[in-house]
Amino acid sequence: MTTREDGRAVDQLRDISIQRNWLDHAQGSCLIEFGRTRVLCAASAVEGVPRWLKGQGKGWVTAEYAMLPQATHDRSSRESVKGRVGGRTHEISRLVGRSLRAAVDTAALGENTITIDCDVLQADGGTRTAAITGAYIALADAVAHLKSLDATKGEPLRDSIAAISVGIIDGVPMLDLPYVEDVRAETDMNVVMTGSGSFVEVQGTAEGAPFDKAELDALLDLAAGGCAELTRLQVEALGR
Amino acid sequence: MTTREDGRAVDQLRDISIQRNWLDHAQGSCLIEFGRTRVLCAASAVEGVPRWLKGQGKGWVTAEYAMLPQATHDRSSRESVKGRVGGRTHEISRLVGRSLRAAVDTAALGENTITIDCDVLQADGGTRTAAITGAYIALADAVAHLKSLDATKGEPLRDSIAAISVGIIDGVPMLDLPYVEDVRAETDMNVVMTGSGSFVEVQGTAEGAPFDKAELDALLDLAAGGCAELTRLQVEALGR
Amino acid sequence: MTTREDGRAVDQLRDISIQRNWLDHAQGSCLIEFGRTRVLCAASAVEGVPRWLKGQGKGWVTAEYAMLPQATHDRSSRESVKGRVGGRTHEISRLVGRSLRAAVDTAALGENTITIDCDVLQADGGTRTAAITGAYIALADAVAHLKSLDATKGEPLRDSIAAISVGIIDGVPMLDLPYVEDVRAETDMNVVMTGSGSFVEVQGTAEGAPFDKAELDALLDLAAGGCAELTRLQVEALGR
Amino acid sequence: MTTREDGRAVDQLRDISIQRNWLDHAQGSCLIEFGRTRVLCAASAVEGVPRWLKGQGKGWVTAEYAMLPQATHDRSSRESVKGRVGGRTHEISRLVGRSLRAAVDTAALGENTITIDCDVLQADGGTRTAAITGAYIALADAVAHLKSLDATKGEPLRDSIAAISVGIIDGVPMLDLPYVEDVRAETDMNVVMTGSGSFVEVQGTAEGAPFDKAELDALLDLAAGGCAELTRLQVEALGR
Amino acid sequence: MTTREDGRAVDQLRDISIQRNWLDHAQGSCLIEFGRTRVLCAASAVEGVPRWLKGQGKGWVTAEYAMLPQATHDRSSRESVKGRVGGRTHEISRLVGRSLRAAVDTAALGENTITIDCDVLQADGGTRTAAITGAYIALADAVAHLKSLDATKGEPLRDSIAAISVGIIDGVPMLDLPYVEDVRAETDMNVVMTGSGSFVEVQGTAEGAPFDKAELDALLDLAAGGCAELTRLQVEALGR
Amino acid sequence: MTTREDGRAVDQLRDISIQRNWLDHAQGSCLIEFGRTRVLCAASAVEGVPRWLKGQGKGWVTAEYAMLPQATHDRSSRESVKGRVGGRTHEISRLVGRSLRAAVDTAALGENTITIDCDVLQADGGTRTAAITGAYIALADAVAHLKSLDATKGEPLRDSIAAISVGIIDGVPMLDLPYVEDVRAETDMNVVMTGSGSFVEVQGTAEGAPFDKAELDALLDLAAGGCAELTRLQVEALGR
Repeated sequence: MTTREDGRAVDQLRDISIQRNWLDHAQGSCLIEFGRTRVLCAASAVEGVPRWLKGQGKGWVTAEYAMLPQATHDRSSRESVKGRVGGRTHEISRLVGRSLRAAVDTAALGENTITIDCDVLQADGGTRTAAITGAYIALADAVAHLKSLDATKGEPLRDSIAAISVGIIDGVPMLDLPYVEDVRAETDMNVVMTGSGSFVEVQGTAEGAPFDKAELDALLDLAAGGCAELTRLQVEALGR
Repeated sequence: MTTREDGRAVDQLRDISIQRNWLDHAQGSCLIEFGRTRVLCAASAVEGVPRWLKGQGKGWVTAEYAMLPQATHDRSSRESVKGRVGGRTHEISRLVGRSLRAAVDTAALGENTITIDCDVLQADGGTRTAAITGAYIALADAVAHLKSLDATKGEPLRDSIAAISVGIIDGVPMLDLPYVEDVRAETDMNVVMTGSGSFVEVQGTAEGAPFDKAELDALLDLAAGGCAELTRLQVEALGR
Repeated sequence: MTTREDGRAVDQLRDISIQRNWLDHAQGSCLIEFGRTRVLCAASAVEGVPRWLKGQGKGWVTAEYAMLPQATHDRSSRESVKGRVGGRTHEISRLVGRSLRAAVDTAALGENTITIDCDVLQADGGTRTAAITGAYIALADAVAHLKSLDATKGEPLRDSIAAISVGIIDGVPMLDLPYVEDVRAETDMNVVMTGSGSFVEVQGTAEGAPFDKAELDALLDLAAGGCAELTRLQVEALGR
Repeated sequence: MTTREDGRAVDQLRDISIQRNWLDHAQGSCLIEFGRTRVLCAASAVEGVPRWLKGQGKGWVTAEYAMLPQATHDRSSRESVKGRVGGRTHEISRLVGRSLRAAVDTAALGENTITIDCDVLQADGGTRTAAITGAYIALADAVAHLKSLDATKGEPLRDSIAAISVGIIDGVPMLDLPYVEDVRAETDMNVVMTGSGSFVEVQGTAEGAPFDKAELDALLDLAAGGCAELTRLQVEALGR
Repeated sequence: MTTREDGRAVDQLRDISIQRNWLDHAQGSCLIEFGRTRVLCAASAVEGVPRWLKGQGKGWVTAEYAMLPQATHDRSSRESVKGRVGGRTHEISRLVGRSLRAAVDTAALGENTITIDCDVLQADGGTRTAAITGAYIALADAVAHLKSLDATKGEPLRDSIAAISVGIIDGVPMLDLPYVEDVRAETDMNVVMTGSGSFVEVQGTAEGAPFDKAELDALLDLAAGGCAELTRLQVEALGR
Repeated sequence: MTTREDGRAVDQLRDISIQRNWLDHAQGSCLIEFGRTRVLCAASAVEGVPRWLKGQGKGWVTAEYAMLPQATHDRSSRESVKGRVGGRTHEISRLVGRSLRAAVDTAALGENTITIDCDVLQADGGTRTAAITGAYIALADAVAHLKSLDATKGEPLRDSIAAISVGIIDGVPMLDLPYVEDVRAETDMNVVMTGSGSFVEVQGTAEGAPFDKAELDALLDLAAGGCAELTRLQVEALGR
């Protein structure tokens, strides 16, 4: 049997912690931890939509992902100081927003905009999947806030959203990779799923050797198990 | 049987055209067309590597993707004028570079850098997959150029790389989506494969409804067929 | 008699090629070639004018010039990636726009804006003059498009516009300089003329020694001949 | 007797909390809270100094202050997305760095650079003073780290540094203003002091009416008391 | 008795010169000199206010400070060329604007905006204090211009504003430091006062050793004397 | 006979004033006035050349032109605040540098760089020609400074440089246009000449109607007369 550096089974998540309402001002927020990865997710809900969406009776959900300079082992420069948002930041922000929108009925949301900020306070692998999983908590509370104001038209949330990373290390498919495993993975995949078990995003990348269909299937199985457990923890955190 | 607007079968590629050596200065280049999508791919090969890679005896392959302002139906603003590269541009540039690197033995490449520019002259869906497929042609010629100068250490190319889009439209999985199909797709997937038939990148996104494992499998099958055909056309273009 | 490297007479243009309607979406376009210099010109015509021109019943014509990274012998960095448009790019964009506006009756154009993009796909000297000459083709077709929609007030085009470079090399005035001649020129001049033979722009620069009135006159004569020939080719391309 | 909205005496600090070593990677860090104001301070210590300081045998201490988008009541745009650092951010970053350097013997620090990031996770007034006070904790641990590596030349810390805000509200001088008091203050002052009770920075601003010498003296007295208490809490946090 | 390099007494200002109406277009302007420090101050007064202030019946006063590249001994790069405004520039611009606003009754100003540009043509210490003192002259003339147009609601100026630097050099408090003194100062303070003798801004910084209350008091006394003299010169310049 | 608004003859310059050594730090400087146009020109001379010129034994001369926000009638935004240099600024900076280099023997200059800043303090037409004419004064003094240090190899200045604007207004060619004439000109030309009477730059633009050869000749004649007079004033200012 494969032993991982931190003693987990290959299909086991790291310790997951969700501290809901970590902020006082945001309409929804949580501090989510996947092991030592720590992401602060905050949702603002405001009336109105971007110009290109006006007058269509639909709402908008968007996200911004970023990392504090000292989240990683070696301090990185601030994107604000460099004057430009990096490609990785852009890419993950788009992924988070797209993933959440898959669970939202924008017509039911009404002409409101929910912006979710996911700031990585500490990074140890899986920051984008922790961000998505935590962002859903913030989103759910922001939607509840709008509903309490009668600002929606029915239920804007069609499902819940969770995400997990999987990868192949030394030929073995594994769930929820910390940094030390991530850098060694031949194939790395991020999977976003609904609470009801469908796929929202599947992003698999051959970092080392290309992968075949059997490996892909094994990774998707692992991810489905992980997302199901995350869904359970989300339900618990939201007290439902 | 499903009829597509342009009369193709669901598993049929658009007309593919590869005009190799379209430029005089680049070490490798082609104008590639997937139907009306037209991408100019150019590879420069220069001695030396970025600072962070120096002294490791390895080469580097990177890519930049961009779109001319009038490539799309409505003119878009230039990113140079806006002063910043957009998220989509960043994301696709990274995808193209990563995909090509999967075929390259950087140690054999030696301390040389190949930069591949993929400029979309006209866009009609599938610009990123055309870019990757054409970029491989430019890469192959740039590598051949380096080999002719005895600047490599053996064969830097381990395999060829091709890419195609697939999607589900009205419940039917289809290959190589033009713009009119792309905007209607419930699920949209870009698949990058090696000439020998393994996966390099699988990026599936639920644009409308989430998708299940059976749909994912059907899409991957279609993509494998498309990539095999593109590989054949690449071999032909390279005169091998 | 002076022999040029490419065998041309001193008052002879390079081979000129104009492929009209090279793009499907633009309201006017052409791929223009002055020898190995290759510029893609595309015109978009949209209703409305910039804010500072609103309510005056006049239209606007503007241009943006740019060069692909691998248009030149050594790859240059993208201005979008550098985050700023360079001085040369700015200067030529302004020249192209100003030159075209000299042929346009903005009142007859009505409150419409035509934006012409000139993207240099390959550079071998004379890119700005090829851009202006090709931009006129794109402009003419965009104007025709507006007229077909009854969106103008009479004929917006008062004349045609063409441009050519001239220079003094080893004391000899020459027409239409490719890169190898351009770098050796003591004096370099770009001349923009109307189809009816008047001057729109005269920009002469002493790159080496200052020049005198006789040299200036000789250069202007050469340019007039070149522009007349380009005007003939434009008429031919536009099928008039 | 004056009653404050939160029941404090005019010379009383809010609840202060310092969670030292809140991060795993930074050489020093703390999460500091002044009431609901919550700032994450992290110090990185690296060998080498900026170019302009090279070869002088001296070290460098610098700081960057920033605020998360949802730290405030209404979400603010990210400076990275806007592409520029705002004036307020610049100003406070400079203040934090300058304040800390007042306590550092840069010759004893050796050619090392300590960079302190102060990221405001939640803002409720006094963010710059909380940042300075917490930054000192991170600095002290980063210096201790360098000393444990024998990378310093003697003791780089000459004193400790703490900071507090004071202001005049309805004519009454008060200590440590939360947001609701800050917006109402006629005069607002930030005072940075050493642990031994000298002034490092005094920045007083008449937001409403100009102030006189007697008011200035009263504010400085209050601030001295507050800084003395903060110094005590710093000593406690550092376990000395 | 302490002798200063330029022979002044410790409480003596440098030669102050105010050339009012140095520009033809601005609604108010002056070239102000504090010794060899030379600042061009220009005020524009335009109808309307920034968006965030609209509809409140109040005006706005703001300032921008900048330095020409060759104002200092060694040429500095232009901020326009670097593409970003530096922290020092930001900080001083904010200080100048805030200082002037302390003298303005924005309700009386009406919905007008006065923008004051302070461009340092030559720098020899005290540029920010010269800027503030000269900016007041430009402001006063711009306000007079608005009043002459009946665009205000009563008198917008509640007081005049002047500013001076003070510092401790070799233990001795001194007034109005030129560059050679400024770089040697242990403590450096900028004091902004109203014509009636109240404080608007007090910004003291320990550049070398921290300072105590007695030193602070001595510096404030010196500054009060200097500002009184500047106020007298302002009255004279404005011909009142 | 044509009367101009300011009473000048058509071939008469405005009042020209050159105040040499207006700055204390620059190696050469002057405040030059063409009527109400007022430009501060400053030259810095430093050892070394840009990287791309290293090791060739040649020097470099470059220029930066800019305009203060309140130089024009309506205040314009600062390019530093906008974060980008405008096209016009770029274009004129390039023109000034190119014009001066025409008079410089870069080999004789040795590996030194002279940077000339031309800052328009007040604009009333002809700012670029005043900038070039004044820049030559600053250049001459900076060169003299380098010669006094024995840092050159012989005489770097081959000639002097002056520039003037000419234009056709209501069909009449005129010299040295102030703003009110400039906006009315059908054709506008800037001419840069050497002291010995040769052309360095000729930039003619049809703002209204295209122009013919006879008009061009008339304008060049006027310009030659104006430049000769400016050359005389430069000699006088330099005390030669």
